[in-house]
Amino acid sequence: MVGRILLLVLFMNAAFLIVNAVPETCPADLGGKCGEDSEWEGEFFPGVTKIKYEGPSSKNPLSYKWYNAEEVILGKKMKDWLRFSVAFWHTFRGTGADPFGAPTKSWPWEDGTNSIAMAKRRMRANFEFLNKLGVDRWCFHDRDIAPDGKTLKETNSNLDEVVALAKELQGDKIRPLWGTAQLFMHPRYMHGAATSSELGVYAYAAAQVKKAMEVTHYLGGENYVFWGGREGYQTLLNTDMERELDHMAKFLEAAAAYKKKIGFNGTLLIEPKPQEPTKHQYDWDAATTLNFLHKYGLLGEFKLNIECNHATLSGHSCHHDLETARINGMLGNIDANTGDPQVGWDTDQFLTDVGEATMIMLSVIRNGGLAPGGFNFDAKLRRESTDVEDLFIAHISGMDTLARGLRNAAKLIEDGSLAELVRKRYSSFDTELGAQIEAGKADFEMLEKKAMEWGEPKVASAKQELAEMIFQSAL
Amino acid sequence: MVGRILLLVLFMNAAFLIVNAVPETCPADLGGKCGEDSEWEGEFFPGVTKIKYEGPSSKNPLSYKWYNAEEVILGKKMKDWLRFSVAFWHTFRGTGADPFGAPTKSWPWEDGTNSIAMAKRRMRANFEFLNKLGVDRWCFHDRDIAPDGKTLKETNSNLDEVVALAKELQGDKIRPLWGTAQLFMHPRYMHGAATSSELGVYAYAAAQVKKAMEVTHYLGGENYVFWGGREGYQTLLNTDMERELDHMAKFLEAAAAYKKKIGFNGTLLIEPKPQEPTKHQYDWDAATTLNFLHKYGLLGEFKLNIECNHATLSGHSCHHDLETARINGMLGNIDANTGDPQVGWDTDQFLTDVGEATMIMLSVIRNGGLAPGGFNFDAKLRRESTDVEDLFIAHISGMDTLARGLRNAAKLIEDGSLAELVRKRYSSFDTELGAQIEAGKADFEMLEKKAMEWGEPKVASAKQELAEMIFQSAL
Amino acid sequence: MVGRILLLVLFMNAAFLIVNAVPETCPADLGGKCGEDSEWEGEFFPGVTKIKYEGPSSKNPLSYKWYNAEEVILGKKMKDWLRFSVAFWHTFRGTGADPFGAPTKSWPWEDGTNSIAMAKRRMRANFEFLNKLGVDRWCFHDRDIAPDGKTLKETNSNLDEVVALAKELQGDKIRPLWGTAQLFMHPRYMHGAATSSELGVYAYAAAQVKKAMEVTHYLGGENYVFWGGREGYQTLLNTDMERELDHMAKFLEAAAAYKKKIGFNGTLLIEPKPQEPTKHQYDWDAATTLNFLHKYGLLGEFKLNIECNHATLSGHSCHHDLETARINGMLGNIDANTGDPQVGWDTDQFLTDVGEATMIMLSVIRNGGLAPGGFNFDAKLRRESTDVEDLFIAHISGMDTLARGLRNAAKLIEDGSLAELVRKRYSSFDTELGAQIEAGKADFEMLEKKAMEWGEPKVASAKQELAEMIFQSAL
Amino acid sequence: MVGRILLLVLFMNAAFLIVNAVPETCPADLGGKCGEDSEWEGEFFPGVTKIKYEGPSSKNPLSYKWYNAEEVILGKKMKDWLRFSVAFWHTFRGTGADPFGAPTKSWPWEDGTNSIAMAKRRMRANFEFLNKLGVDRWCFHDRDIAPDGKTLKETNSNLDEVVALAKELQGDKIRPLWGTAQLFMHPRYMHGAATSSELGVYAYAAAQVKKAMEVTHYLGGENYVFWGGREGYQTLLNTDMERELDHMAKFLEAAAAYKKKIGFNGTLLIEPKPQEPTKHQYDWDAATTLNFLHKYGLLGEFKLNIECNHATLSGHSCHHDLETARINGMLGNIDANTGDPQVGWDTDQFLTDVGEATMIMLSVIRNGGLAPGGFNFDAKLRRESTDVEDLFIAHISGMDTLARGLRNAAKLIEDGSLAELVRKRYSSFDTELGAQIEAGKADFEMLEKKAMEWGEPKVASAKQELAEMIFQSAL
Repeated sequence: MVGRILLLVLFMNAAFLIVNAVPETCPADLGGKCGEDSEWEGEFFPGVTKIKYEGPSSKNPLSYKWYNAEEVILGKKMKDWLRFSVAFWHTFRGTGADPFGAPTKSWPWEDGTNSIAMAKRRMRANFEFLNKLGVDRWCFHDRDIAPDGKTLKETNSNLDEVVALAKELQGDKIRPLWGTAQLFMHPRYMHGAATSSELGVYAYAAAQVKKAMEVTHYLGGENYVFWGGREGYQTLLNTDMERELDHMAKFLEAAAAYKKKIGFNGTLLIEPKPQEPTKHQYDWDAATTLNFLHKYGLLGEFKLNIECNHATLSGHSCHHDLETARINGMLGNIDANTGDPQVGWDTDQFLTDVGEATMIMLSVIRNGGLAPGGFNFDAKLRRESTDVEDLFIAHISGMDTLARGLRNAAKLIEDGSLAELVRKRYSSFDTELGAQIEAGKADFEMLEKKAMEWGEPKVASAKQELAEMIFQSAL
Repeated sequence: MVGRILLLVLFMNAAFLIVNAVPETCPADLGGKCGEDSEWEGEFFPGVTKIKYEGPSSKNPLSYKWYNAEEVILGKKMKDWLRFSVAFWHTFRGTGADPFGAPTKSWPWEDGTNSIAMAKRRMRANFEFLNKLGVDRWCFHDRDIAPDGKTLKETNSNLDEVVALAKELQGDKIRPLWGTAQLFMHPRYMHGAATSSELGVYAYAAAQVKKAMEVTHYLGGENYVFWGGREGYQTLLNTDMERELDHMAKFLEAAAAYKKKIGFNGTLLIEPKPQEPTKHQYDWDAATTLNFLHKYGLLGEFKLNIECNHATLSGHSCHHDLETARINGMLGNIDANTGDPQVGWDTDQFLTDVGEATMIMLSVIRNGGLAPGGFNFDAKLRRESTDVEDLFIAHISGMDTLARGLRNAAKLIEDGSLAELVRKRYSSFDTELGAQIEAGKADFEMLEKKAMEWGEPKVASAKQELAEMIFQSAL
Repeated sequence: MVGRILLLVLFMNAAFLIVNAVPETCPADLGGKCGEDSEWEGEFFPGVTKIKYEGPSSKNPLSYKWYNAEEVILGKKMKDWLRFSVAFWHTFRGTGADPFGAPTKSWPWEDGTNSIAMAKRRMRANFEFLNKLGVDRWCFHDRDIAPDGKTLKETNSNLDEVVALAKELQGDKIRPLWGTAQLFMHPRYMHGAATSSELGVYAYAAAQVKKAMEVTHYLGGENYVFWGGREGYQTLLNTDMERELDHMAKFLEAAAAYKKKIGFNGTLLIEPKPQEPTKHQYDWDAATTLNFLHKYGLLGEFKLNIECNHATLSGHSCHHDLETARINGMLGNIDANTGDPQVGWDTDQFLTDVGEATMIMLSVIRNGGLAPGGFNFDAKLRRESTDVEDLFIAHISGMDTLARGLRNAAKLIEDGSLAELVRKRYSSFDTELGAQIEAGKADFEMLEKKAMEWGEPKVASAKQELAEMIFQSAL
Repeated sequence: MVGRILLLVLFMNAAFLIVNAVPETCPADLGGKCGEDSEWEGEFFPGVTKIKYEGPSSKNPLSYKWYNAEEVILGKKMKDWLRFSVAFWHTFRGTGADPFGAPTKSWPWEDGTNSIAMAKRRMRANFEFLNKLGVDRWCFHDRDIAPDGKTLKETNSNLDEVVALAKELQGDKIRPLWGTAQLFMHPRYMHGAATSSELGVYAYAAAQVKKAMEVTHYLGGENYVFWGGREGYQTLLNTDMERELDHMAKFLEAAAAYKKKIGFNGTLLIEPKPQEPTKHQYDWDAATTLNFLHKYGLLGEFKLNIECNHATLSGHSCHHDLETARINGMLGNIDANTGDPQVGWDTDQFLTDVGEATMIMLSVIRNGGLAPGGFNFDAKLRRESTDVEDLFIAHISGMDTLARGLRNAAKLIEDGSLAELVRKRYSSFDTELGAQIEAGKADFEMLEKKAMEWGEPKVASAKQELAEMIFQSAL
């Protein structure tokens, strides 16, 4: 047979399916520029111009109604509070596949291959997208931006080639918010990476993280993320949880050492998730991850990347996990997305709930912002959203929602009545005895004496409904 | 062969990855018989002989400890109570892929293609598996057993070719428990099949079901199943639920008419599932599906296929949905699997909980068995289980668990004390007034008169702990 | 009365505790008017004047910011769209007790007894509350408004005495939105009422419902509600579910007959709930209840009362269950409350989420309003909210939220772009073939022929993100 | 004063109800011994003799089928592995009340009062129950065993009086497994105890814990438990989580100091629970609690009391939380109960699932037993179980289930094949490089070198189905 046969084999849980066979001649919608060696030189989003702020009354879906990058809120520009980032994987490698369905997206710039040329073309699309959106940060996994080679060496060299282009396209303004290594998709990682039962896999993962850190550093990335995609278990019947956790600690320790060795100053971030893909992920939530860092003496080396949909899957509100991270001095970054409260898996939707966005922004403001972290849109188009413009609409909607949350949070802070309600609730501790208690100087005998003296304590209303009324009135 | 074959395996929302490139020469582990035109002629499971009953004390994983096909329990052979079936899709098309990971299985008989030759080879593996397991029934989706062609006509002809082989391999003994059409994986079905917003898709789905019913009939299938894989919605914001449900009713009505037209006497079964892949599936659970059938006058035409993992995802125990189906005269088949009680998605595990199996078998016995339905193992190996023998171990474990459940249920029934406990609880209705109430002849005035006469009613203990003790002692 | 009154307050599974011993002399905060025979004659809420509409910019918690009763929205007054009702039980009998805690409320008008005098005083408080709030409807359980007597006869006579006062206090303007019988709190109902295993309890429940319907009718109630508080089971091991459901059907049939007999024209409403207090309630959700009504031929006699917190506990959004009721012509009333998405029990909070309120109002508008049903605030103050003013704040917040939802829904409807997006999605069915399909005239052969002709169908983007953007921009 | 009027006022969420008015003359079923000053002198459980081991074939509900106290399993007597304890609150203060229902139990020894005489009578019933059951340990809350007085001083003196009797009744053999303070039921604790917003409540709680520790010490208790019943929040809108957590730490620090001061050598245990009564409890699960102890430097002072139903509510299996505690050296005690996997609140059922019991016992054996902790039956009769014998049946069932779990776990350990399967999975780390990694001596450069050398790592099947088969065959 002369020529090439490209078989796109879609693997679902249940079946194979030939969806598409790229023909031997170049299709019109690739603008005559397909093939391994060609590069797409035109515009990727010809119908879209730079997205502008048009204010809340605009009916134009391709405009910002609330996000006005340069506008100053509480002494800082919106763009500096929000530090938005586009997630390369969802936006440029998301296929629409799900456990019961084949890919649904067929972006015009895709040629059906996983070649280096295709990788570069996609990278150009990414930067056009960033520029049109007016977003200065992006996040990536190593394996999303460049294809696997036959060997690790070849894979690294593929990565280098694509990264060189990314560096060039970044220019002066754009930087990775963070990079990470994809340690969950390849079958070698089926038992985990740092927690795999196979030593060879541990070593392979180390090599992969090493390279991903180097590349992130090279691109000027501000952070590096660890999401323990398969660091967890499916059943304790076949698992040595203690040994696996010990391995994970050694792995992270080595990563922190390597970071210093190469002079990378970015923050190392761990991203908790309770379940999925494994039945039980080791980094269940913020508190579990903090406990792990405490136990293994790794506390100074890492911060947390809180993802809202992960927080809600673990049984907490997003706000709870943000606050848990914040009051432990560990809030480093937010993966801005949301889930469906009635659905038991990670839906990674763009956040559009203004109330939740306002809660999030209250935490961010209390944290003094997120820098060097930011808001990464770890969110994807619905499988059924297949127009190129949907990519823009989804991001605009997510950005506007957080911008609106910021405006509302600022309103609440400026108004002050919610903070005052809270302050008053605890005012009995703003006393001499309160200070003694808080200094650890009030022992049980002294407290018993007081309790006997005082009789039945007065207890005030918690005013939850009033607090909710104040909160809602700011939305 | 001249040229290269590139197999691009797409497996996730987030990325592409070359997992496997079939080499130009035939690999050793395919026995030199790979390629589109060759067929595998040797044994697929050379290390496994016919699985035999060896009793509970056997340590041999490849033996039955509880399932003794010909043994008579409560007047019927175990095999006739249980009517086991192997699910072709999980066992022969399951790849181990999940939303975060590429396929992990590489069965020796697979050549990496989706060719007709490969389909036939797989079918031979299926029948060797059935024979070695001693199971006489199998279930299939149209698209799992034969590859898509370029047109529907070609697809149908592919199906015919593979089905002809299946018919031959079935011989006298083996039959499909049921067949079904896969209406959820292809992107054309992204908005549903019968409930798609696109008329063209509705028509396509009708054509596909028509063919799948014909094929099931041809193979001597005893039932035909409708699982509304994407009959549901992702958000009500963009959905006309009423119109979609009307369409679904018309579709099922046409299916029932076509069944009669072709003289197919098998039962039509609807399989409820609450969520996944859509946020909200229309056939949420047994009761929801029954309501749908009532509303649209379809009650006489369909029964239910209850899947345990679906029942638990909908907030019910498996036993609840079985009983709901049974007392409505609608229990037609059981998809025998189980989920993880702490996990919010369909894990399709083989059931190994003996207590649950006993509850299930109590319902089945009350139903007088399931025929012409049976137990289909809609269950899959864990992603991390990659040995060929794991396929046998999983099925043996599932079969033994249900066999043990049957033995326990028989023990409970023969003992009689649980049934007696229940009978006694309701004995106040085994009276003249009870009979009047149950006949609808006791109006409120008469009942008020009695209530006034009697004063405060006596209320007995429900004896739940005693019931649990009796139940557990049979396990 | 000479002697001491010991009030033993039992409030938990685990313990007894003396919370309060009413002193022998009358406390100042009862205005010197305590005791069984006295009645409270002053104002109950002296600090609160009639709540007025002050518009969104008001900072006064005791004002409406969005609810302007007489304002016309989409051709109808806000008060006619919303038809608010106060739930007597939560507002006047809610104690703040929970499974781990004793009552926390001590409203100044309560004297710690459950006397008739106290019942009347509470009823006066209820009407002052309704009047100050500007709400014309209230809902009640029989046992909440009047105390149990030693016999059913005495209990009924207590009820009559209090109801006579309520009738007087109602005046021309105020009416019950609905009444109901409390069939779950007394230990006699521990196994259910209509589904109790004890015939005596069935009869008692019939007598109680008979009286509650009479009383509701007497007060001019517009509806009568059945919430099957304990109609369900704790374990199937000791339960004859089929027999229990048959009994429930006979009971409801008798209720419908009695309604006609007494000339009560109000709607009979069933309120679904999935769980709590029983592990499995028979009226799980809207669809389950509809199936029950279908099966037993009761469909014409009842409508549904959808409670948002019940809907979400059953795994659906509130909007889903409203739409399920609506498209079946069964949406009769809404119990307006909300739950916490991360909490697995009924929290009965006042709804303050504007987005959800907007979804709800979209359903209500499509339903042409709810009359003779309305919005009953089946919602309670948090246990920790113990100021009298919290009762007002909570209701105002709930009313304003729904009023805001109504305004937003009207905006969306007037704008029209969301409806247009939906209409367009299904436009392929607005064709000749679409009409044939919808008329049940398109058989599988005809559809197959079309599918073959047309080839691969085109499938458009579902535009979920755009729909969400349009929706959010109306908030 | 002529006569006494005892009003038992049941507080439910929604209503008051007079259930029972104790008559002025002494009822027959109290054996003529009621009244504040009398004590019950006869047998409490006249129909029950000492429960004996009769083996698995016994049909006698009042016998042990699996628990044979003196039998040696894996070198230790069953009673020493299991160290059972009866929970005073559920067994003797459980009323059957739930959020929708009044108490259902009316044990013959209860006179409807909360007097000291009643408290003593109950204590005698407790010890008869322990003796007949053959259980040597009991657990209690301060407020369950003795009534509140008008002042803290009087309350303490009530407690002393009842405790003196308990000490006497304990004799040589019986001891508290643990004591605790009830800091959640009284309205003063509505905002928490150590985390209350009111300083007066903090002091009161300190006084109460001080006394409860003294009393536990006096009775020879082996442990002291902290369950933070209301240490959590309902909404973050009105909560200063950081300040509250700081207070909780100071409180526990003072408790640990006081323990030393009085020479109490028992273990201090914290009992995690994720939710209920608050929306978010601070001691969410084992890992969260460990993180708290780490952060505040309290790690050496406390261990954990893992409750199975709490673990499952937090999204983990019971086994997971046991293992998390164990591998951190923190497994101190088990609250033996179970929940319903489809129910979202704490049902506190007696564990009857043999599979789960086997998993639990595998952890306990790995932990070398639980002493000085044990298994406390923090489990209650179902509300509908109202016979005195149900108390025995429930405990026997729970004890037999764990005994059966112990026997099965021993079988698995003696068989060894499950442990061998796990050992083999990790054997690649039992190598020189494995040792280096585990010693923290393998840096990323060295690992990368190895990964490059080795090429694609081999990854073995996880054999989950085989592990499940081995596990099930031991049941």
